[in-house]
Amino acid sequence: MVRSLLVIGTGLIGTSVALAARRAGVTVFLADRDVTAARVAESLGAGLAEPPRHPVDLALIAVPPAHVGPVLRDAQHRRSARSYTDVAGVKAGPERDALRLAPDPVAYVGGHPMAGRERSGPLAATADLFAGRTWVLTPSGRTGAAALDDATALAVLCGAVPVRLDSRAHDAMVAVTSHVPHLMASLTAARLRDAPAGTDALIGQGARDVTRIAAGDPALWTGIVHANAPAIAAVLRDVRDDLARLSAAVDALDGTGPDGRERALRTITDVLERGAAGAVRTRPAQVPDRLRVVLGREPGALGRLLRAAAPHGVTADRAEPLPHAEDELVVHLEVPPAAAGSAVAALDAAGWHVTRAETAPAGR
Amino acid sequence: MVRSLLVIGTGLIGTSVALAARRAGVTVFLADRDVTAARVAESLGAGLAEPPRHPVDLALIAVPPAHVGPVLRDAQHRRSARSYTDVAGVKAGPERDALRLAPDPVAYVGGHPMAGRERSGPLAATADLFAGRTWVLTPSGRTGAAALDDATALAVLCGAVPVRLDSRAHDAMVAVTSHVPHLMASLTAARLRDAPAGTDALIGQGARDVTRIAAGDPALWTGIVHANAPAIAAVLRDVRDDLARLSAAVDALDGTGPDGRERALRTITDVLERGAAGAVRTRPAQVPDRLRVVLGREPGALGRLLRAAAPHGVTADRAEPLPHAEDELVVHLEVPPAAAGSAVAALDAAGWHVTRAETAPAGR
Repeated sequence: MVRSLLVIGTGLIGTSVALAARRAGVTVFLADRDVTAARVAESLGAGLAEPPRHPVDLALIAVPPAHVGPVLRDAQHRRSARSYTDVAGVKAGPERDALRLAPDPVAYVGGHPMAGRERSGPLAATADLFAGRTWVLTPSGRTGAAALDDATALAVLCGAVPVRLDSRAHDAMVAVTSHVPHLMASLTAARLRDAPAGTDALIGQGARDVTRIAAGDPALWTGIVHANAPAIAAVLRDVRDDLARLSAAVDALDGTGPDGRERALRTITDVLERGAAGAVRTRPAQVPDRLRVVLGREPGALGRLLRAAAPHGVTADRAEPLPHAEDELVVHLEVPPAAAGSAVAALDAAGWHVTRAETAPAGR
Repeated sequence: MVRSLLVIGTGLIGTSVALAARRAGVTVFLADRDVTAARVAESLGAGLAEPPRHPVDLALIAVPPAHVGPVLRDAQHRRSARSYTDVAGVKAGPERDALRLAPDPVAYVGGHPMAGRERSGPLAATADLFAGRTWVLTPSGRTGAAALDDATALAVLCGAVPVRLDSRAHDAMVAVTSHVPHLMASLTAARLRDAPAGTDALIGQGARDVTRIAAGDPALWTGIVHANAPAIAAVLRDVRDDLARLSAAVDALDGTGPDGRERALRTITDVLERGAAGAVRTRPAQVPDRLRVVLGREPGALGRLLRAAAPHGVTADRAEPLPHAEDELVVHLEVPPAAAGSAVAALDAAGWHVTRAETAPAGR
């Protein structure tokens, strides 16, 4: 059980954890080599900007990856806490440093709460930052049960979902899910930076979404890329290969490359199809229930149906002519399983004849 | 004035325009070579799925870029409308085709309403799709005033903001603002597709945002890339160069490349900084008013201030010690200009001593 916490490094993540811990009634001490940052966190209500008089239950080291090892060593020399964890976005390097430098690696477990904002610093902190987010814990071969329990308790107390991973597996995964997406956003945004005046009116939500995370602090991100270079390098090589093929294919369409047109179009479609498959993977999978309505040819009937259905979470999936009755339209609807019963009842009551489609292999 | 409209191609864009036009009282006719698509649009209330008996005021050609020219030619041969426009996401090719094929290029102006969704087809259509969006119009050297007026009227009627551009300038701009961001999203998402099982828990909002548009229809996007290949090819070459330098730099950090470490870090920071500058450009610029509060050293004071200020649109920008009084904290706040007066009054009434900072060069 974590009743007292020392946060070393009161940036966005450290201060947000401190605010969440304070809200849960934990006694929190704040430290930062920038005394103003600690004072700001204190003034935000994140705890007291002073050293604890007795060892706390858990020390949270919220500093850049390369500093985790030295800061852990110093904190353990001072006997600051019973257990120690960190929040660095890469885990193999800090683990290696901890095993090499820390007097008591048994009391340390690596951690990575997967949340962030484009803004950094304590003023951007919020107690809700980790609600529902994954909080990875990466026990080393030396990590003891107490450290793992304490760090897990902190993650839960912040509303996060603890997930245990090997530090190297973690680093390979975040290279794909976080670091390379950030670099791709930067590469895309760099092109927008160089675009001529007047381009701004043509920037839409798509470009804004792709480039949003590129607004992150370049110095901080240089440190992250440095710390996870091997895993990022491997993914970037794959991206580079894909981009080389794609770029050559577009050159071919432009008439300046050696590829044939049909082959070029296939290459482009292949990249787009693999991208679409990847994009699906980023969305929480939920298999909807399927409903079915047959409509006669009456202009606006489907519009009325969808307006009646929308408040019940029902959306249209597709529509097709009824076989052998081409003027009738079969409309396939989707609804979250939990809402299906009430949606059917409400639509029936409103005069629509809705049937549930048989799609599940076993007795739905 | 546009009182009657023929929509040729009842996909997402055509049907959404039709719904917006119907809402504004325009008589709308719907045509699609897929009769079911036209029937679905009709059933949504987007108009009548039949040919107009007399020429309409405006025909909207909402088909893929390569088909605009032939469809325009056929529609003008049938004398379907007084004026003609289209919605293709690239403009130079359709303009060239129109000038070559159309019997009456004076009556045609290219158009591109800058709105979309990941879903395509009439079932994804909505009358609000264009509200507040840019709608580019690209008059050719031949375009007459009536066609330009009619297309402008349609854009306004859909709630969009008409912007006039040369077709080639448009294509160069959307390569940077739309097409290359899409391809970058696809390349990023393709890496996520290939990531090992268990990776999904580590996919956060950042990766979801970067890859969202990659979910778009690969066939549709292959057509767009094909139609705007010259402009896209030029931008992709710049991206490829940046990526090659970035990838080599990360290899160098990994110890496998020839670059020196310091030089590699500078290269990475350079890409990240250019990306951050580009990301800023994608956000609507609003210069906030600046407020200033001095707080004594009382834990939680800043937290209380920000909770009192948030309902008035006030956010914290930065904080620093007061010179010669290190225990006092100067907090710099930002607020939208329109809300500044009421925010200051409300905070004053709540007992906070807020002053407006002098930042504007001339008498604010």
